[in-house]
Amino acid sequence: MPDVSTVKALVFDVFGTVVDWRSSLIADFTTWSATRGITADWTGLVDGWRAVYAASMDEVRKHPERGYVILDTLHRRSLEKLVAQHSISGLNEADLHYLTMGWHRLHPWPDSVSGLTRLKTKYIIGPLSNGNVALLTDMAKFAGLPWDLVLSAELFEHYKPDPETYLGAARLLGLPPEQVMMVAAHNHDLKAAQKLGLKTAFVARPTEYGPLQKYDFEAKGDWDIVAKDFNEIAGRMGC
Amino acid sequence: MPDVSTVKALVFDVFGTVVDWRSSLIADFTTWSATRGITADWTGLVDGWRAVYAASMDEVRKHPERGYVILDTLHRRSLEKLVAQHSISGLNEADLHYLTMGWHRLHPWPDSVSGLTRLKTKYIIGPLSNGNVALLTDMAKFAGLPWDLVLSAELFEHYKPDPETYLGAARLLGLPPEQVMMVAAHNHDLKAAQKLGLKTAFVARPTEYGPLQKYDFEAKGDWDIVAKDFNEIAGRMGC
Repeated sequence: MPDVSTVKALVFDVFGTVVDWRSSLIADFTTWSATRGITADWTGLVDGWRAVYAASMDEVRKHPERGYVILDTLHRRSLEKLVAQHSISGLNEADLHYLTMGWHRLHPWPDSVSGLTRLKTKYIIGPLSNGNVALLTDMAKFAGLPWDLVLSAELFEHYKPDPETYLGAARLLGLPPEQVMMVAAHNHDLKAAQKLGLKTAFVARPTEYGPLQKYDFEAKGDWDIVAKDFNEIAGRMGC
Repeated sequence: MPDVSTVKALVFDVFGTVVDWRSSLIADFTTWSATRGITADWTGLVDGWRAVYAASMDEVRKHPERGYVILDTLHRRSLEKLVAQHSISGLNEADLHYLTMGWHRLHPWPDSVSGLTRLKTKYIIGPLSNGNVALLTDMAKFAGLPWDLVLSAELFEHYKPDPETYLGAARLLGLPPEQVMMVAAHNHDLKAAQKLGLKTAFVARPTEYGPLQKYDFEAKGDWDIVAKDFNEIAGRMGC
């Protein structure tokens, strides 16, 4: 069994790992649009939005001379294109803002809050997400996520899986990488963290992408912990 | 009465405002040194330590070419000089580390946790302190401070009262300055925040410096709120 006794802090991927972004956004927009009298394929819009996520961050990586751009802004830019592509009409400025801020109103998976609450008794816990600080802070209040602090790609002006994010988190925590455990439902995130010396925990979220899910049904790496949910991680970490 | 209805987040000075650093350190070191068999004037050391605090940050401001230096490191450097000046002998590396980390183990004022807990129900709350992120995170767990997020001078690589700290906090919160309220027991901190458009709340902590206290017995500015403790601030903010 891998030695995780050195771990002092656990940092969490958020979208998909802690919160169910897809179901949350579809339900939120469906309810909201009924009151606004707007009709659209919200499932298609949400899936399309997430599909351009990686490319939108790549643009920031490719153009450092333009400066770092936070995820709220990337979300808004992508939304404007998708609204046009999906020919959704009748959305005003306030509506576009409401939809963009949907990413601040995501619901946790059923085990997230109880597992985090247990882990918090013995460890420092925080997100380590590509979401910006305000997004993660609002989400924590909305979803009841009991973070000790908020770590975000925004603080390092680099998106995951850039090394600056994992190493920056360890630096701010005042810990060597081996005392920090990255928790994610995505193998590529853990691979990047492990390469830099962080401990790793995988939890499968096989419904994250709904019928479109293609990857991450199971652990594909030598992770320190592979668990079915956050409560199993808490148990394995002695909480 | 000033209009504080726009406020969405409250950020707090920490040393002196939220925690009683002087009594905490003196009690901690006195108890600890008895078990270590080391005798020293801990009150004198603690007062001396805080007395060189401002100058140690000024050195960082004056030498940007040397890079930002976190408060833990400034504390350690000052401690080494003070130990020599006070002719305290018998301290090994682990002892110096223990003393430096004393700043992570500070106790809150009696009203801090209850007041913050009330404010957290309606507002985003976080420290905005010259303490580094790890210091503030450790202290929050030690003292039970229910922050939503940890904002620190370290994130902006500038110490208060540099404008980068107050404006950086508002930026990370995704809020204009007038939606952020700075809470402090120090008039000069509020003056800097107010100049940049933040709302302000003053709470007197007249025993912060013990018999050495010279300033900040009362509000010396046109602050939006002047309160006797955090619970009064919570009440004034509708919590």
